[in-house]
Amino acid sequence: MRSCAGSSPTAAAGVTRGHRREQLSNRRGLAPVRSIAGPSFESIDSDDFLSPVTTLERDQVTKLVAQVSEKDGKVLHPDLLNPRLLEAQYAVRGELYLRAEELKKTKEIIYTNVGNPQALGAKPLTFVRQVIALCAAPFLLDDPNTPLLFPADAIERAKKIIASFGTGGVGGYTDSRGNPMIREEVADFIQARDGHRPSTEHIYLTDGASAGVRNVLQSIIRNEADAVLVPIPQYPLYSASIALYGGKLLPYELDEASGWGLDLDALTRTVAAARAEGYSVRALVFINPGNPTGQCLPGEEVARLVEWCAQQRVVLLSDEVYQELVYRKDRPFTSAYKALMESKYAQTAELISFHSVSKGTSGECGLRGGYHVFSNIHPDTVAQFYKLSSIGLCPNTIGQVVVSTLCNPPQPGDPSYELFAKERADELASLSRRAALVSGAFNSLPNMSVVPTEAAMYAFPQVHMPLGALAAAEAAGKKPDVFYCLAMLEEAGICTIPGSGFGQAAGSQHFRTTFLPREEVMEGFVQKFKAFHINFMEKFGPKKKQ
Amino acid sequence: MRSCAGSSPTAAAGVTRGHRREQLSNRRGLAPVRSIAGPSFESIDSDDFLSPVTTLERDQVTKLVAQVSEKDGKVLHPDLLNPRLLEAQYAVRGELYLRAEELKKTKEIIYTNVGNPQALGAKPLTFVRQVIALCAAPFLLDDPNTPLLFPADAIERAKKIIASFGTGGVGGYTDSRGNPMIREEVADFIQARDGHRPSTEHIYLTDGASAGVRNVLQSIIRNEADAVLVPIPQYPLYSASIALYGGKLLPYELDEASGWGLDLDALTRTVAAARAEGYSVRALVFINPGNPTGQCLPGEEVARLVEWCAQQRVVLLSDEVYQELVYRKDRPFTSAYKALMESKYAQTAELISFHSVSKGTSGECGLRGGYHVFSNIHPDTVAQFYKLSSIGLCPNTIGQVVVSTLCNPPQPGDPSYELFAKERADELASLSRRAALVSGAFNSLPNMSVVPTEAAMYAFPQVHMPLGALAAAEAAGKKPDVFYCLAMLEEAGICTIPGSGFGQAAGSQHFRTTFLPREEVMEGFVQKFKAFHINFMEKFGPKKKQ
Repeated sequence: MRSCAGSSPTAAAGVTRGHRREQLSNRRGLAPVRSIAGPSFESIDSDDFLSPVTTLERDQVTKLVAQVSEKDGKVLHPDLLNPRLLEAQYAVRGELYLRAEELKKTKEIIYTNVGNPQALGAKPLTFVRQVIALCAAPFLLDDPNTPLLFPADAIERAKKIIASFGTGGVGGYTDSRGNPMIREEVADFIQARDGHRPSTEHIYLTDGASAGVRNVLQSIIRNEADAVLVPIPQYPLYSASIALYGGKLLPYELDEASGWGLDLDALTRTVAAARAEGYSVRALVFINPGNPTGQCLPGEEVARLVEWCAQQRVVLLSDEVYQELVYRKDRPFTSAYKALMESKYAQTAELISFHSVSKGTSGECGLRGGYHVFSNIHPDTVAQFYKLSSIGLCPNTIGQVVVSTLCNPPQPGDPSYELFAKERADELASLSRRAALVSGAFNSLPNMSVVPTEAAMYAFPQVHMPLGALAAAEAAGKKPDVFYCLAMLEEAGICTIPGSGFGQAAGSQHFRTTFLPREEVMEGFVQKFKAFHINFMEKFGPKKKQ
Repeated sequence: MRSCAGSSPTAAAGVTRGHRREQLSNRRGLAPVRSIAGPSFESIDSDDFLSPVTTLERDQVTKLVAQVSEKDGKVLHPDLLNPRLLEAQYAVRGELYLRAEELKKTKEIIYTNVGNPQALGAKPLTFVRQVIALCAAPFLLDDPNTPLLFPADAIERAKKIIASFGTGGVGGYTDSRGNPMIREEVADFIQARDGHRPSTEHIYLTDGASAGVRNVLQSIIRNEADAVLVPIPQYPLYSASIALYGGKLLPYELDEASGWGLDLDALTRTVAAARAEGYSVRALVFINPGNPTGQCLPGEEVARLVEWCAQQRVVLLSDEVYQELVYRKDRPFTSAYKALMESKYAQTAELISFHSVSKGTSGECGLRGGYHVFSNIHPDTVAQFYKLSSIGLCPNTIGQVVVSTLCNPPQPGDPSYELFAKERADELASLSRRAALVSGAFNSLPNMSVVPTEAAMYAFPQVHMPLGALAAAEAAGKKPDVFYCLAMLEEAGICTIPGSGFGQAAGSQHFRTTFLPREEVMEGFVQKFKAFHINFMEKFGPKKKQ
């Protein structure tokens, strides 16, 4: 490790928390020593895991700046932790959620704050769970009673999957990139979807998409001069991870007026300005279908974004976890991979695409399965991702099994096909109705509007707050959107997330809600919300003359 | 984020890979600007996830040092990745493993390089898998045929666990710390083991122990001036993670002559020397039972280490994943938590203990379950760990179910008790026989010796290499231990890991082997190894006179 402890970003921040004297001495530009590490150090033989320090120690002269390592008798005092952890924000578990946890002791709360379908009553896909059960209990496969409980194709699939894991089935570590057969099934799934097939060498299975996003950001970000473009509004995983790994979050606003569309001219200006300041703008995060916006970007716009990234020399990180949930027949999902492969940059532009088992009609959030695909990434870089994955050993095998069942579902004629297809179609149709119900309700009300939800599981309405409400929020020491959402929670028992948790245009007020509660509950949600909102606006709006 | 890009450790390393000119300018101590981030930046309202940068931007004057952001047409060129990732080493997938993967195409390879029991033929515990299957397929619970396949207590347990997850069962995200009922079961398990009970608020479930270790190290390490004591030999997870998070690995040698014991006087000297250099020595990693050493530290030595850490103001990170695999009746496992609670530092000394479902008789490596326990950690620091966990959403639910079944196993009188107890006892007895077989074989041979394995799943023998072998290794451009292990692989088809992958006293040569292959295979291992070793020593040892 090349050391710059005293003046490194973490040290600087740690020191501001710690003691100011050393911070000032840092500012005088003292470089730290790579010192000997104590008596036993020089006698160690190793596969070089110590050498980055040892090799540097020799040509050093000055001293490390001592840091506070204890406060109030605690080594792990919160003021002495990694400052990047302290700075990371994660709004999904914010003030609203904590207040809701209190309130639920005394009243019924409708949770629409997290995209967690099964926790709100969605049923898992039967075939997926049958295959998991059989993979977990292989001793059932030869039991004569098993066909009384499991269809033949689930039994066959489980046998095939168990064999593909090799000795030990799901009980052994797999290759850190995941089970090779399942990575083949992912490649087949992508070929069927896009008409183009990635190499299985470029497909890595992960514990949900989040784990993949974090590994990729950790690998890309060298320091605060490395900037990552993130849409506003965004999903807090990105802001939190960029803070955690010490990078620069470079926001770009989606255009609400054009249905949360992209403004590539504004993006170009943003990148030019940041580069003029000396930032290395390395990657752009793109969430399609959108979270929290609930939009699906038209194929031609995806193609334009892919070209823009190629021309700007920015790696596209395409978060496509909601790709199954699209409600407008005239606006199907187009993957960044398909757009890339059909562009003139098919062999050059760097793309990493993410998918998950959590966010489709299966909604398997708890089982933690997902994958990402590398396109045009340098082979030695892919190898570095392999090493990073190997430090975590492997993604959990049950999550890998879910990926297999979703990428390679039952086919017409299979015993499980009709039930599987019906379960998926029914859930998709129900989500589509709930999306329309919520969008319609929001747009029927005064002082608010929403871009009608056409994908994913969220609506992100804008609330036009009366001056009286803004004053009341200020008096309460709350941001206006937090004030509004807290009032909604207290009065209607609905738990949402304020727009400021995702980022929003200055002066605008939004909140994010899912429509995951079952349809009967969502109708109650609409009634309770309407009553709250009308009452809120009457309470804070301009008063009528007597 | 407090920015010091140009002179931060990552930048410095990135730049040496990139272009030297800026590195020199860094050395002149230029501080970077926290610039505005482009046109859209100032217009963003957020829950402060951008503010660490925005608040700092105002009082800045100088410029960021531009970094190379592209090489050979690649933004993600391997030379331009996070240098801490490039520097991280992970020996478990090293030269030996890669060569073995080649050789296995043409000959049978005995893999003793990874602690992966089921992949080598160990059977899962039936009750554990029955409960998983029923939790994954809750629709089975009411099927009249289910009792034909599952015992009553597995059915009851599955119902209880599913209910504890709430609506959605294992299909929903859980609290980021894990299922509260299962955390209670962990607390009960610890109370039964140690006679002391931690608060469930201080128990966090994780995707295996590795995920917990990485979160903890990421939180503790601020910069290269923060040092973590790691035993030599060590498990590469620690060296790799410390490199990844930019800390200083401070090695302390275990004493092979005293059965890989601790030398607290040497430890004290190591810490004093490092502190004199300005390092903040924050934590000590302790692996008990030991990996790769296969030893179990006597209770009184655990107590002395706990006291030492308390007196030295060092947080003890106690890796106890092998605690179930102890083969010497007269030397039972003593947890650091028990030693702490029975010391005069019970209410003060900071301890984090790690456990896993991967490394006991269940050997559920693929399912990724584990937990860690915080003792005397500042409550606000525990809250920061909660936030870090929440960015990853939650540990996989099936891994949580495994923790439940192992911490709360069938009791005498339960239908599953006898089988469960027999499966565990048989595997433990078999591992004990294999440990004795391997240790005995190594100690029966010339030019090698091993501290007899009394715990865990590893032996770490020392090989006394003849001068001829050292010369041959040098001629081949290999480290002596790597040369020896490669010869073993080529001639005996046995895949081990050279001692240098774990660290070893300078001039000594070791390798790590597991004894996880089944007993009949291990007997073949011993025969093949003996033939190889004797032949190796005859080939390179002093030649007899003709």
